[in-house]
Amino acid sequence: MGAADMTESKNQHEPAAVAWRDGVVRLLDQRKLPREEVYLDCATVEATADAITAMVVRGAPAIGIAAAYAVVQARQQYLTQQAYQQALAYLRAARPTAVNLAWAIDTLAQQPQTVKALLLAAKQIHADDITANQTMADLGCAWIEKHCQPGRQAITHCHTGAIATGGIGTALGVLKQAYRQQLVSRIYADETRPWLQGARLTAWELAKNGIEHRLIADSASGSVMAGGKVAVIAVGADRITANGDVINKIGTYNLAVLAKYHGIPFMVVAPQSTVDRQTASGAEVEIEQRDAAEVLTVAGQRHTADNSKVENPAFDVTPAELISVYVTELGASDDIGVLA
Amino acid sequence: MGAADMTESKNQHEPAAVAWRDGVVRLLDQRKLPREEVYLDCATVEATADAITAMVVRGAPAIGIAAAYAVVQARQQYLTQQAYQQALAYLRAARPTAVNLAWAIDTLAQQPQTVKALLLAAKQIHADDITANQTMADLGCAWIEKHCQPGRQAITHCHTGAIATGGIGTALGVLKQAYRQQLVSRIYADETRPWLQGARLTAWELAKNGIEHRLIADSASGSVMAGGKVAVIAVGADRITANGDVINKIGTYNLAVLAKYHGIPFMVVAPQSTVDRQTASGAEVEIEQRDAAEVLTVAGQRHTADNSKVENPAFDVTPAELISVYVTELGASDDIGVLA
Repeated sequence: MGAADMTESKNQHEPAAVAWRDGVVRLLDQRKLPREEVYLDCATVEATADAITAMVVRGAPAIGIAAAYAVVQARQQYLTQQAYQQALAYLRAARPTAVNLAWAIDTLAQQPQTVKALLLAAKQIHADDITANQTMADLGCAWIEKHCQPGRQAITHCHTGAIATGGIGTALGVLKQAYRQQLVSRIYADETRPWLQGARLTAWELAKNGIEHRLIADSASGSVMAGGKVAVIAVGADRITANGDVINKIGTYNLAVLAKYHGIPFMVVAPQSTVDRQTASGAEVEIEQRDAAEVLTVAGQRHTADNSKVENPAFDVTPAELISVYVTELGASDDIGVLA
Repeated sequence: MGAADMTESKNQHEPAAVAWRDGVVRLLDQRKLPREEVYLDCATVEATADAITAMVVRGAPAIGIAAAYAVVQARQQYLTQQAYQQALAYLRAARPTAVNLAWAIDTLAQQPQTVKALLLAAKQIHADDITANQTMADLGCAWIEKHCQPGRQAITHCHTGAIATGGIGTALGVLKQAYRQQLVSRIYADETRPWLQGARLTAWELAKNGIEHRLIADSASGSVMAGGKVAVIAVGADRITANGDVINKIGTYNLAVLAKYHGIPFMVVAPQSTVDRQTASGAEVEIEQRDAAEVLTVAGQRHTADNSKVENPAFDVTPAELISVYVTELGASDDIGVLA
């Protein structure tokens, strides 16, 4: 089965986050899930970049796939080198923190710069992600079986499932399979303010898969851990720096500190494209500050006073010493250096 | 100035959460703040109890004051001992975790059971809370001045300000005064899901008082602490057990663990009526589970899938060993035994 075919063979439970159709990047609008399942057709590289900024598509691996197809769009649109490079710079700035976006652009830059070659490479990135997801699920479950108490609970943060990736997901891919293998008995999903990815997407995906779950407020994670039944905490990553620091959705760091305090293994699951060898540590990473409105309003309604001031960092940095194991498609290890 | 007068002398910036007017308990409807400032008149003990359950009035000290006036209503309504005691039992069950509710009922039970005596005692509880708030602010600020780096930041959780109490507040009373005394330069307010007390009430109160503040998602507290500029974290309490465990708004425990990891002093501010000497430790306290709808919907709109399951504990237990200092109106100490 070729790369082009593999990208169609999604898990039957889940819609595809990203699809390529004759020059158009079709994105599942994740802002409207789970109440509405609508798609946005992006006909230009700029439209795709803007959709990435607006979080129509989200999840580091899915952003990488969408960006790869957007490079193909840029090549189709712009014949001069200058205009083409300008379009790629615009795309690269769509979300500054997720390294997969830059990685996809850089990977395609090493190909012959023809539409045909770029499209093949983009489809390969898409197909490779599907394969990597399954490999990570197998490796992650093997680690849990070896290191965690069986039949207990798991906690996850944000959404790292099917539509955050090309395949079954990263951290949520591991946990869904761990549930099926009876390695964990229940998955707690942090609701993940301010964007509520856990409430809207993770709880939805777990219910669709018939998996025992509980949605909780982010700040309830500590009391769940204190209950003494949590065997593992698994999260994804938007970027892993050379020293193993993990940049991921705001709140990941809180969970990691709480896991350490409770002696619970903390697992980070991400394809090796997430590893940024060019950046020494998390201290060097620009953390995206998002719009205050994400905190000041809910469901489009303002619940706060007019003069309230906000800080809204999209990500935080979890230092390597808090991470028990990294899982990439190359293996599971406490040393990121051997996995990318 | 007598007790009756003192209850009228609120800080000019804030409306009164609870007021007594000729047999009616007038409650500021805190569910609608800060967008609307409306009052609910409760003419019976049952109406006042239901308003406590529905969180029209909230904050452990304010609940205590409302409950004291509700006892007077019960005495006015019911002439037989059986009916009177039934009404008090209904009132006691309005919110199971906050000890101030039971404390107010028990305090009034020690009075002559006449409407006149009960009303005097209720007004005394109200007046004493105003005084206690100011005393705690003075004691808390003195502790911060002695133990914390000056001119740095503070974090608080939920809402412990003016309308959560009879006076200027508990933890927020300390922090507002600490800001005025230039002991802290900025106050971070956790938004405090699911009920958003921090977003709706704390940020509003800080802005009204002209205090430099930032509203954050609950899960951003770790990255704020990692920034290295936080001098103190101050929270209130719904109940403090005999061994010093603190039952407070869900997420307090997360903050306390994070404070410990970052070496930041963790302060609990509560009147001595919050101390429950009858309960040995937090393990014995029934934690109120609230309606799943608080997590499944925001602003009345459902953002989650129909089959998502929820856990929604209203409180968590912070063990005594994570608490640097307790502040009651009797003093500031790391030993709750000397403060109540």
